[in-house]
Amino acid sequence: MNEFELIKKYFSKLSVKNKGSLNLNDDVFFDKSNKIVISVDTYIEGIHFLNFKNAELVIKKIIRSSISDLICKGVKPKYYFISGSGNKRSFSKSNLVKIKRSLSQEQSKFKIFLSGGDTVYSNKLSFTITSVGFSNRIIYRNKAKLNDDIYVTGNLGDSSIGLKILKNKLIVNKKLKKYFVEKYYKPALYLKLANKLFYFANTSIDISDGLISDLEKLINNQKLSYKIFIDDVPISKNLKNVLLLKKFKKEHFISQGDDYQVLFTASPSKFRIINKTAKSLGIKISKIGKIRSSNQKSEIINQKGEKIAFKNSGYFHLF
Amino acid sequence: MNEFELIKKYFSKLSVKNKGSLNLNDDVFFDKSNKIVISVDTYIEGIHFLNFKNAELVIKKIIRSSISDLICKGVKPKYYFISGSGNKRSFSKSNLVKIKRSLSQEQSKFKIFLSGGDTVYSNKLSFTITSVGFSNRIIYRNKAKLNDDIYVTGNLGDSSIGLKILKNKLIVNKKLKKYFVEKYYKPALYLKLANKLFYFANTSIDISDGLISDLEKLINNQKLSYKIFIDDVPISKNLKNVLLLKKFKKEHFISQGDDYQVLFTASPSKFRIINKTAKSLGIKISKIGKIRSSNQKSEIINQKGEKIAFKNSGYFHLF
Repeated sequence: MNEFELIKKYFSKLSVKNKGSLNLNDDVFFDKSNKIVISVDTYIEGIHFLNFKNAELVIKKIIRSSISDLICKGVKPKYYFISGSGNKRSFSKSNLVKIKRSLSQEQSKFKIFLSGGDTVYSNKLSFTITSVGFSNRIIYRNKAKLNDDIYVTGNLGDSSIGLKILKNKLIVNKKLKKYFVEKYYKPALYLKLANKLFYFANTSIDISDGLISDLEKLINNQKLSYKIFIDDVPISKNLKNVLLLKKFKKEHFISQGDDYQVLFTASPSKFRIINKTAKSLGIKISKIGKIRSSNQKSEIINQKGEKIAFKNSGYFHLF
Repeated sequence: MNEFELIKKYFSKLSVKNKGSLNLNDDVFFDKSNKIVISVDTYIEGIHFLNFKNAELVIKKIIRSSISDLICKGVKPKYYFISGSGNKRSFSKSNLVKIKRSLSQEQSKFKIFLSGGDTVYSNKLSFTITSVGFSNRIIYRNKAKLNDDIYVTGNLGDSSIGLKILKNKLIVNKKLKKYFVEKYYKPALYLKLANKLFYFANTSIDISDGLISDLEKLINNQKLSYKIFIDDVPISKNLKNVLLLKKFKKEHFISQGDDYQVLFTASPSKFRIINKTAKSLGIKISKIGKIRSSNQKSEIINQKGEKIAFKNSGYFHLF
């Protein structure tokens, strides 16, 4: 049983099905009457980040991962809480200085500020980040409409290559290493896109677990399926080069998670405004597929119309 | 360096000193403009709770510990988030059923509901609870006034005896064991007291680390000291019996933490209204000391006016 099914099964009845609650079936909690949006996520060394050798970059990654949940729902984050558990080495003075510097940079970049938290002793390093924003509306999950186009921001897969490099499972030249490792630790977030999403997106999610996993989550309560055109899934020039060089297949890299790009669906009539918004904000937005009726099976196809076998595809948390 | 000093030193500049922020020097975050009060705490097996053999009771303890932060500030909690990290055994089906049942009971008792959270795999069991309430005011730390009386709700020390019993460091009869272990796992919280505190309390905190530790935190930014009359510190009949039976000294048990009683100061003129409130709500509230000028040293004295040497006194988190 994956995390999502587990939470749903055991805990959904504990949340109140009112206009405020999302019944735990979304990435954020939205209290409409108080106009508050909250996301809570835990990040564990060895699972959500490789190690703490580079404290500054890990901090950037987890802060961005957390506020990404709000941004993809159309909400600008306002403040955050950080709870760290770790040993004395993880929270040495030199690491504390780095953590502080890193948080400070993220605060300027994303216009958020620290509101509190907790530090406790543990031999296992983990962080829980609570992000808070204010809005009278959000873009929900499970609001895709039949025949919607499926869109994604930025490029996918760079982060997974970065992780492979960090794990010494892939060797590339210095320049490429720097590029991919940065993509792993510092995913691009589009703060300016947040408000604009309401103009065209019917439903949205950020890609943290992987394109296909998150697409399935996005429509999990709906009688719908999807068709993804793999050739339209955007990847960077650097990733293209690596695929060529190493004879890797594209399908093994575009759904590995940690991308933090926004995945959304929109009516075909919104094509123009989406392109206009992308241009005006300087953000790459690619149409990669279609929402279909559940009479048809979900599929990923190439230019020739051949189905691509897809190993699943991102990770689920273990329970 | 203890947790409090550490947070203050490294992170206080990251919070904005505006009307909303408490500059991390309080147990809760208060955003006055949005009328929101938030508390975030992490609980780790072996530190904040002994083990997870009794999942239901552990869940009660950590939920109460978290919402206690709000209640002692005069704020009723409205909802909470729970992030659990643990292995498959900790989150077995039978434990999930217990966790759900326990959360459900706490929700009814304290009129709160689950809003979300996260479950992730880790070989170390821990929980982070985020509690949220709404209020246009809170009772702050560091607002004690010279000559204020010091008050505490309920009884102190029962919880520490419960922990000793659970650790097999103390053997008592079955009836007493049940009493003290319940006090450890299910501290009494006074939801009805929350709103009333504004009528008389100048400053308040809940006793989680220990009477003296928390009293020192309560006035840590003020040029004040305290005088505690140890004979006035309230303890239960059962604790009195154990002290007699085992020839234990009272002073070794009243500042061990985990009490979750409310510690507050009030002007001597409020004595009547405090007693009246205590009576009408059926809550024990005891006057245990005085706030004095920092020209005098803080002290704990007995009936004869003798100073009591006090081993410190609750725990600080290790960093």
